[in-house]
Amino acid sequence: MNEQRAFEAVKKQLKPARYEHTLRVVETAEELAGKYHARLEKVRLAAILHDYAKYRPASEMKDVIRSADWLSDEWCSYGEAILHAPAGAALVRSELGITDEDVIRAIVYHTTGRAGMTLIEKIVFLADYIEPGRKSPGIESVRQAADDSLDRGCLLALANTIGFLTSKKQPVFPDTFHAYNELVKLTMRGLKS
Amino acid sequence: MNEQRAFEAVKKQLKPARYEHTLRVVETAEELAGKYHARLEKVRLAAILHDYAKYRPASEMKDVIRSADWLSDEWCSYGEAILHAPAGAALVRSELGITDEDVIRAIVYHTTGRAGMTLIEKIVFLADYIEPGRKSPGIESVRQAADDSLDRGCLLALANTIGFLTSKKQPVFPDTFHAYNELVKLTMRGLKS
Repeated sequence: MNEQRAFEAVKKQLKPARYEHTLRVVETAEELAGKYHARLEKVRLAAILHDYAKYRPASEMKDVIRSADWLSDEWCSYGEAILHAPAGAALVRSELGITDEDVIRAIVYHTTGRAGMTLIEKIVFLADYIEPGRKSPGIESVRQAADDSLDRGCLLALANTIGFLTSKKQPVFPDTFHAYNELVKLTMRGLKS
Repeated sequence: MNEQRAFEAVKKQLKPARYEHTLRVVETAEELAGKYHARLEKVRLAAILHDYAKYRPASEMKDVIRSADWLSDEWCSYGEAILHAPAGAALVRSELGITDEDVIRAIVYHTTGRAGMTLIEKIVFLADYIEPGRKSPGIESVRQAADDSLDRGCLLALANTIGFLTSKKQPVFPDTFHAYNELVKLTMRGLKS
């Protein structure tokens, strides 16, 4: 799918403010892809489509996830905020014919992260967290870290996410914990990408 | 082992301030055991011995854990602060002849918690967190919750612990995450012990 068609397809799915967010994620992801030497075309396509399912009803998203044999049903047990990520990946596959697994995976994990994220997954995850419209507490530290180290940026974003969810007594998807612990250990050893 | 011998054995292992902490944990655990109908003798014995290994060198604690085939080596990969819990359980077994599995498990999980904690485990975990000498941020909310619901008290203690560790970019033992998520779901459904 070429980019123009992807932009048109996603624009129909989103409210205007969310489409503006998407444009900022694409721009931020492009900057990160340049800095960290990722394949730009894949990064941009995943960023364009990352929120494709954002406005589907929760019940539809759960049906989509449960019908996709390559997605765990566990996604349906951790609150509605994360459903659009795996459901969106399944829907861009079935409705838009996207088959690139690098793009699909980056959409699946763009909200939760996971241990073992690829370069493209990390970039889309982090771009979604730090795009210039975001205003969450501590975001400036994440932006600064992202400028020096992709892993350190992802670690700070994951730590903030877990801190926010635990302060609200909300469930935390296990992949987020595993991603956090992995990057704590990786960055403690000084291994940075 | 009778209580007097347990007190004598643990006093030899601890600095005076840590022994005073132990006495407060025993008292707090006894109150919780009365309120939540737990077996007092087991709760008290676990509380008396919970910090038995606190001042052993990290290298010795790791050796003790790795030598105990009933303890996962994973304990050795998440920072030194949690080592004394499983190592202490192994040492009270080998050095003091404690065989009661309820007591042993309460010592193993007193710092991290785990999904599926027993009543005794929850009480020792929570008593260690809220005893009157503790001054961590948010502790009063945990004490108040513990007064109404053991599960809610444990949930708030786990949330605080995870929030503290992520704010410091320290690793979080997986059992702590699983315990947190379990109690989020349990208390959301209104099931309280």
